[in-house]
Amino acid sequence: MTGKLWIVGLGPGAADLQAPRATAALAAATDLVGYGTYLDRVPPHAGQARHPSDNREELARAHHALSLAAAGRCTALVSSGDAGVFAMASAVWEAVENGDAQWRRLDIEVVPGISAMFAAAARIGAPLGHDFCAISLSDNLKPWDLVAKRLNAAASAGFVVALYNPLSRARPWQLGAAFVLLRSLLPGSTHVAFATAVSCPDERIDITTLEQADPARADMRTLVLIGSMATRRIEGPDSSPWLYSPRWCAA
Amino acid sequence: MTGKLWIVGLGPGAADLQAPRATAALAAATDLVGYGTYLDRVPPHAGQARHPSDNREELARAHHALSLAAAGRCTALVSSGDAGVFAMASAVWEAVENGDAQWRRLDIEVVPGISAMFAAAARIGAPLGHDFCAISLSDNLKPWDLVAKRLNAAASAGFVVALYNPLSRARPWQLGAAFVLLRSLLPGSTHVAFATAVSCPDERIDITTLEQADPARADMRTLVLIGSMATRRIEGPDSSPWLYSPRWCAA
Repeated sequence: MTGKLWIVGLGPGAADLQAPRATAALAAATDLVGYGTYLDRVPPHAGQARHPSDNREELARAHHALSLAAAGRCTALVSSGDAGVFAMASAVWEAVENGDAQWRRLDIEVVPGISAMFAAAARIGAPLGHDFCAISLSDNLKPWDLVAKRLNAAASAGFVVALYNPLSRARPWQLGAAFVLLRSLLPGSTHVAFATAVSCPDERIDITTLEQADPARADMRTLVLIGSMATRRIEGPDSSPWLYSPRWCAA
Repeated sequence: MTGKLWIVGLGPGAADLQAPRATAALAAATDLVGYGTYLDRVPPHAGQARHPSDNREELARAHHALSLAAAGRCTALVSSGDAGVFAMASAVWEAVENGDAQWRRLDIEVVPGISAMFAAAARIGAPLGHDFCAISLSDNLKPWDLVAKRLNAAASAGFVVALYNPLSRARPWQLGAAFVLLRSLLPGSTHVAFATAVSCPDERIDITTLEQADPARADMRTLVLIGSMATRRIEGPDSSPWLYSPRWCAA
């Protein structure tokens, strides 16, 4: 068991938002494992084996990475953003818990990254400047009733909400249903931001309101931020607004 | 108005967890503004002016940084972790909204960073692998009733909870009160982690349970993570456990 497994967050997309520790791990690895689109962001190193896989195969990918490390390879398993946020780190420990007993003795290191939610927030202003939560809208892995319960709890208690996995071909209605639910809890004037492909060349940010928010604006690369009732809008230069959530909250 | 204001997150502490974009902004700035302890983490550059300030003076510090930028200086305002998370970015827009009308035309850029919560999670395993929220326990800026309401909502709806600002000399009782409240909502066996000075030489991680959690373990540099009922513990090598929250949740 001389292998190693790094679980590496690449950050949101731009090379200069990737931590040097991640860059070093990716250069030192003998093997890279990950969703092909993410692996394409890692520059090639001589003698390094690459194992791209399809999306939505998280557990199989975790098994593969653990098997390589157990066989003595120095393996980097890559995620976009931060690997601990709706990404590969959790799948790895699920595989460890239910897999080969030897895997518990492996040298596993998570290299944190700049998450999509904080990269998006930075482009929008400071919408996450007060208490906030993150909810994945994917109901592949949990029942929709639970998503709805959490949206209800978060909005009712005044959290700003970051929605991950808002929409995909296989999950076309969830974001619309979330907006319908949130409109029953929050004023129509509540600020909403769509942040797509943050820090990438095709980045697109749109700031709107809950009343006007169109679920069709989102895609798989979009993070949706729902302000709290305290979140405020300031008109910035060139008519691009900023959103921020004040640090304080009145009684 | 040719100045510039970068609001820069330095990451949790280790130099190799600071984004290259942050490093570049800090090198390009003519002026650095920030809490002295954070400024000390920035290597000196010739000809650069440094404006350290005391802690807890966020709004005055934001005014200072905006004034420098408005005077044509290229100013970097530094925060630890991510500047948008219970840090300086929100204070800047609060100052913009209520300050000199010209400040709205300034070139302001937030450079995101690796937040304390994700750096802590990476050291612990994948405790934030499922829906989660972040709550500041400081009641300087909001009433305790609201903190309690949010703890209640988060724990009842099955969020993992990251507690920022758990304890300070001026706020000695809040974390204890939070534990008492959470014990009325969650089993005593719920996993709890204390993560202090993550990625720094004096880093200290302790994993315990809600029943056993001692508020006195926390200090100003500690992040406290409260698992959900789904969060699991795996014994790792050298008897250091991992915590992870599974991606899925049963109905």
